[in-house]
Amino acid sequence: MVSLSPTHDAELLARASKIKLVCFDVDGTLTDGRLYYDDAGGESKAFHILDGQGLVLLRKSGIAVALITARNSKAAERRAAELGIEAFTGIKNKLEQVHALCERLGIGLDEAAFMGDDLPDLAPLLAVGLAAAPGNAHRWIAERVHWVTSAEGGQGAARELCDLLLDAQGRTDALLAEWSR
Amino acid sequence: MVSLSPTHDAELLARASKIKLVCFDVDGTLTDGRLYYDDAGGESKAFHILDGQGLVLLRKSGIAVALITARNSKAAERRAAELGIEAFTGIKNKLEQVHALCERLGIGLDEAAFMGDDLPDLAPLLAVGLAAAPGNAHRWIAERVHWVTSAEGGQGAARELCDLLLDAQGRTDALLAEWSR
Amino acid sequence: MVSLSPTHDAELLARASKIKLVCFDVDGTLTDGRLYYDDAGGESKAFHILDGQGLVLLRKSGIAVALITARNSKAAERRAAELGIEAFTGIKNKLEQVHALCERLGIGLDEAAFMGDDLPDLAPLLAVGLAAAPGNAHRWIAERVHWVTSAEGGQGAARELCDLLLDAQGRTDALLAEWSR
Amino acid sequence: MVSLSPTHDAELLARASKIKLVCFDVDGTLTDGRLYYDDAGGESKAFHILDGQGLVLLRKSGIAVALITARNSKAAERRAAELGIEAFTGIKNKLEQVHALCERLGIGLDEAAFMGDDLPDLAPLLAVGLAAAPGNAHRWIAERVHWVTSAEGGQGAARELCDLLLDAQGRTDALLAEWSR
Repeated sequence: MVSLSPTHDAELLARASKIKLVCFDVDGTLTDGRLYYDDAGGESKAFHILDGQGLVLLRKSGIAVALITARNSKAAERRAAELGIEAFTGIKNKLEQVHALCERLGIGLDEAAFMGDDLPDLAPLLAVGLAAAPGNAHRWIAERVHWVTSAEGGQGAARELCDLLLDAQGRTDALLAEWSR
Repeated sequence: MVSLSPTHDAELLARASKIKLVCFDVDGTLTDGRLYYDDAGGESKAFHILDGQGLVLLRKSGIAVALITARNSKAAERRAAELGIEAFTGIKNKLEQVHALCERLGIGLDEAAFMGDDLPDLAPLLAVGLAAAPGNAHRWIAERVHWVTSAEGGQGAARELCDLLLDAQGRTDALLAEWSR
Repeated sequence: MVSLSPTHDAELLARASKIKLVCFDVDGTLTDGRLYYDDAGGESKAFHILDGQGLVLLRKSGIAVALITARNSKAAERRAAELGIEAFTGIKNKLEQVHALCERLGIGLDEAAFMGDDLPDLAPLLAVGLAAAPGNAHRWIAERVHWVTSAEGGQGAARELCDLLLDAQGRTDALLAEWSR
Repeated sequence: MVSLSPTHDAELLARASKIKLVCFDVDGTLTDGRLYYDDAGGESKAFHILDGQGLVLLRKSGIAVALITARNSKAAERRAAELGIEAFTGIKNKLEQVHALCERLGIGLDEAAFMGDDLPDLAPLLAVGLAAAPGNAHRWIAERVHWVTSAEGGQGAARELCDLLLDAQGRTDALLAEWSR
């Protein structure tokens, strides 16, 4: 991510400017896809500090943020709680969950964004106003979204989406000013 | 893996079209080869979400899937159970194990595929109908298989083999249609 | 880092020659940004052996070293203790902490260096005499520091800063001679 | 390592043909340098399956193998025990330890190889007949050894050294034949 500010095309910015809800898949999107198994029955996964910061910035800017994962994961629930956002785990039908969230917020699917990397994310990705995939997404997904980030999952991919939304909604300059002192 | 659908040569597709059983080595193939040791006697390894999804898709498509590892590993057993496949751990002679599985399924070695990355995988790789190695395989292996994936072990190498088999057996379009709604 | 000794420009060396205190952010700077969560409530992060060696060399050369992190982290405290340096964890205002350390040491902000990778590091980075960021820093930071290392956080980025300071203060030859026998 | 067999220059092969003892640093050499700290006081590190296989092949070929690390590490001791080799941990003077091992084996320093990545490895590296460093070694080391491997520490660097020794001592063809059936 060390580079000049990326230039996004006009259509992507237009999509991003309308977003009021962002949903993230967990494994492979907010993590690098690794599932650590130990010999005693435990399981771990690694979130990224850059992504967490981005999710908090979104939330503080008034954009709703949620994690939606098919896998049961106490780790995902804990990470979400720490960031002050909601986690929906063990979700077999992710599109249904996005629908429910949109209804609760009183917004349309065109005001929702989704980021995911594999087959179980396909239906919500095809339905929302802004569909994004991490750089390491499966090609089935990468070929069907509006935007593939340059960073990989769990390595800043989610942060790139956060930055795009903050940029498109004119929040970035104020954030930089606030954190400069 | 973000790219257009890879084009496989005709011979590889012919081999893949016949496969009814796929066996995977674990360390370095379904993992990145790292063995995490803690100071209290525990050990961990990291599987990948993309690979797991691929193994489940194979199984649901009627292709038998098994893990075969020389190492004793409760983690590998647990991962296999979660994916609904069999794990054979502590196996000194992997070729013998592949033979036994073929016999049980009533298929020939030309209908079996094997993916591995190092010396203990050489004998089964030389025997099966489709021999594959992850991108990071030892050169002794990489030079002797039918196909080296572009992804590394534990980073989607196994999924590339799953995708090849699904493509060669004409399953991909139905899967994408099923998961699009 | 396998390369000839890097050539630093004169301004950077001039800044480095004055430094008596170096403060490091932790997550994303002394680590690769990954936060490992297990399902039992535990959390881990990975420091790097090269960075640790560098921090010890700085300390032994009479340069004060401190870790400053917004996150509460027993892991960071333990790593710091092991290296014989101070850790300030749970710090919401990092610039204030740098100020306090400068005051205690009786030095000016131009004699302090800071290395960080994201928004909470921006204020101290804009204030100190030498502002550095790891290769994987957020672009908001990378565009505002004096120097971006070629190594990424938790992969030798901190060591590059240590080496720069040791070089600029004429310590390197003596170290190499001491460790050659 | 997926490539044709590397061609080593004649001098390196000459050095390798004489080696009867190989000593490996641990952190950054047999691992990627990451030290995982959890919040409960535990520590982990990751060894690599390819490296372990190489160390076992050396041992079975009659070449003595030892781990020598300045750090106290139960993980290193456990990994060594598993591979059937010796581990010397908490060693402040690594050159002295190499001397002692040579004496015990009745060999000269020109018959010993050492692989390391940072300052504490410098003295033994300058003394032995074959000095090697992983691809990610500190430049102070990389510039002073006979050979820098293409793989990084904990990612097959040690295996490259094992392969060089097996090649130089004419063992490779027999190994491949043995494992082909």
